[in-house]
Amino acid sequence: MQLLKDRINQDGIVSEGNVLKVDSFLNHQMDINLFQEFGKEFKKRFEKDNVTKILTIEASGIGIACIVAQNFGVPVLFAKKTQTKNIAGEVYTSTVESFTHGRIYDIIVSKDFLKKEDRVLVIDDFLANGCALLGLSQLVKEAGAALVGAGIIIEKGFQQGGDRLRAQGVRVESLAIVESMDENTGIITYRD
Amino acid sequence: MQLLKDRINQDGIVSEGNVLKVDSFLNHQMDINLFQEFGKEFKKRFEKDNVTKILTIEASGIGIACIVAQNFGVPVLFAKKTQTKNIAGEVYTSTVESFTHGRIYDIIVSKDFLKKEDRVLVIDDFLANGCALLGLSQLVKEAGAALVGAGIIIEKGFQQGGDRLRAQGVRVESLAIVESMDENTGIITYRD
Repeated sequence: MQLLKDRINQDGIVSEGNVLKVDSFLNHQMDINLFQEFGKEFKKRFEKDNVTKILTIEASGIGIACIVAQNFGVPVLFAKKTQTKNIAGEVYTSTVESFTHGRIYDIIVSKDFLKKEDRVLVIDDFLANGCALLGLSQLVKEAGAALVGAGIIIEKGFQQGGDRLRAQGVRVESLAIVESMDENTGIITYRD
Repeated sequence: MQLLKDRINQDGIVSEGNVLKVDSFLNHQMDINLFQEFGKEFKKRFEKDNVTKILTIEASGIGIACIVAQNFGVPVLFAKKTQTKNIAGEVYTSTVESFTHGRIYDIIVSKDFLKKEDRVLVIDDFLANGCALLGLSQLVKEAGAALVGAGIIIEKGFQQGGDRLRAQGVRVESLAIVESMDENTGIITYRD
């Protein structure tokens, strides 16, 4: 998606440790007009898949998922990272290892909101090592629901997540796939 | 907002310890059509306030804030609960005590995205003791920005947060104010 690549080139900051900072428009401050364009694009790509639910994970996936959901007319469900008092009854659980935050945590969704009839589109801001997405796909599997695919804003193509998931047969649609980044020059190369 | 009260009466669950579970439509599964109605209502209430930014806090405020923001044409900024590698540079910080989760944590926003010229509308799903909202208003104050007001979906009127904030001169607009809840009968009474 050229609009997104242009925005990353304009406002993204490449820094040490293969970090791509896009917190001015994607995952801290959020440009809602841009998110609306993501919604249109994912609608095109998943139009024929009869999506019944959008699944994401707290926190930075939620805003994108909600804007995108408007194009599909379906509810959003977000996986929570720790069990809180506000989740009633039984939950599906899986474990995620976060390299960004250097920790392992459980993610949960209530069984009430993920059913075997559901056709689930997963939405997230980043795909790097793929652990969050694997965890989410595990929740969908546990529920006996169908995973239609994953809509990702920025995939780090030089990490293994996208390959791992595609090898498992998951349809991954990333709006920008970063092939390489140079922290000295700030130059970002994208996969065609 | 009658539509919201009807929905709470239909799908909300009152349980022990003054907990109102609305996770089927508000803060776990999210009914985006309903959120769009929140957006229209807040637009009416804050139309003349020249809002330049919507501020919320992770996680459950984010989805509502993003949908509401479409009515104002402004970006959303969400306060993060812990400092992560993805926040660059200097931040504004305040401390929040969560009774729901029984812990104290810092919230931060990047100084890059909250400026003294900003006219900030805070959006959140719940207002109970008001600690989160006080923390957010502190961030706005630190930035030297103007706090236009707070748009809340459900205020627990029998807790002190709303009164405390209004006493400080904060304009709090809650779409439903719960005056009392009975966990035995499930009956919820609203403030007029």
